[in-house]
Amino acid sequence: MLSGRTQDANLAFLGESLNELGIRLMEARVIPDVPDAIIDAVNEVRARFDYVFTTGGIGPTHDDITAECVARAFGVALIRNPEAEAILEVFYGRSELNEGRLRMANTPESAVLIENPISKAPGFQIGNVFVMAGIPRVMRAMFETLRPRLKGGRPLLSHALTVNLPESVMAPGLGAIQNDHATVEIGSYPYQKEGRFGVRLVLRGPEPADLAEVGARVRDLIGDLGGRIEAEAGPGRT
Amino acid sequence: MLSGRTQDANLAFLGESLNELGIRLMEARVIPDVPDAIIDAVNEVRARFDYVFTTGGIGPTHDDITAECVARAFGVALIRNPEAEAILEVFYGRSELNEGRLRMANTPESAVLIENPISKAPGFQIGNVFVMAGIPRVMRAMFETLRPRLKGGRPLLSHALTVNLPESVMAPGLGAIQNDHATVEIGSYPYQKEGRFGVRLVLRGPEPADLAEVGARVRDLIGDLGGRIEAEAGPGRT
Repeated sequence: MLSGRTQDANLAFLGESLNELGIRLMEARVIPDVPDAIIDAVNEVRARFDYVFTTGGIGPTHDDITAECVARAFGVALIRNPEAEAILEVFYGRSELNEGRLRMANTPESAVLIENPISKAPGFQIGNVFVMAGIPRVMRAMFETLRPRLKGGRPLLSHALTVNLPESVMAPGLGAIQNDHATVEIGSYPYQKEGRFGVRLVLRGPEPADLAEVGARVRDLIGDLGGRIEAEAGPGRT
Repeated sequence: MLSGRTQDANLAFLGESLNELGIRLMEARVIPDVPDAIIDAVNEVRARFDYVFTTGGIGPTHDDITAECVARAFGVALIRNPEAEAILEVFYGRSELNEGRLRMANTPESAVLIENPISKAPGFQIGNVFVMAGIPRVMRAMFETLRPRLKGGRPLLSHALTVNLPESVMAPGLGAIQNDHATVEIGSYPYQKEGRFGVRLVLRGPEPADLAEVGARVRDLIGDLGGRIEAEAGPGRT
């Protein structure tokens, strides 16, 4: 889940990093800085998924309401976190700890901090919800420090092929291949570029041998249809 | 709501186009091609919001399951839409209407088509849900044809200022200005660039005079704090 403005860079980073850990990104949401929207979304997704990551809304300004809303979602108090306050005091000096900066020491009661090696103001974890900064460089640094807390499975492998055929020409053949191979998911993403339609196929699965077999069948299909592979990535962790 | 891969271009286009019509984009979701995920999301958001727009998943391949899932969400049958079939027959010719292409004529019963001036295969509307293609150029063309069906309010105006001050320095002053002005929403989006922290402030509201007043106070605050405005856009429709 993302809070605030669209953060495509953060979403791409999270998708890749989680996949490395064998955790699949299942859903992303971009929601406004409106308390009820945040509280409802946090409660929906924390019930539905193993892990929830939020980015943004934990800075010093009046519109940084994520900590407060997460506390309300969990039904706990928002406290001035002594550990967070100590970190900010070392960084800014006591005399420079203005009202806005002190806001960044607020966390829900019982939350565990997530270290911020870049700009110090920490994120926090409560239950399965990880609350991180929105600035991409800070978010990435926070994610690195919390990595050991995450438990994943087998990473998905993927194989991407960009093909100069319209999707509708490939559709019946792709459907037949998909039918025969339950362990590999064949995604078909059409595009249009310089007036021509083409398709980016992405094969995904945990098993290298299955992925190779589907890859070979897809290659044959493209050849049979007179198409050409214009770009290729993988198979591998991508 | 977005279906399938992240589609930042589509999201940005929808946000802007809807704002022109005086309709505020309240939430965006990126969800996987999993039937229950799509059905649940459609039912949640159509109950919560005035309009829902989906992009992607209405092509000819096995993983294009949006029409089927939207039909299930509404509890109606998925039918071969005669009007859609006629459009595809003219475009492809009857002999070229393979199984995949015919899939693109499927809509929920009672759906109204959304014309596709680019690649013909139509989108559709059912209730307050508008189902569109994922390819940005096609999606934009579909949106233009459905514009007259949408009813909006007053467009939000916005004024963006990029400032070379850390967010925490501006926080108390911004909070005070926000407190005094309920009709203007002050958003503060921090960034880090070449090792320096800065902030992009976005003032939003329907009333030009209020926006101008808040803009003047924000300018004074920046000056008082020794900051500089490094870039500016608006006030206007943006």
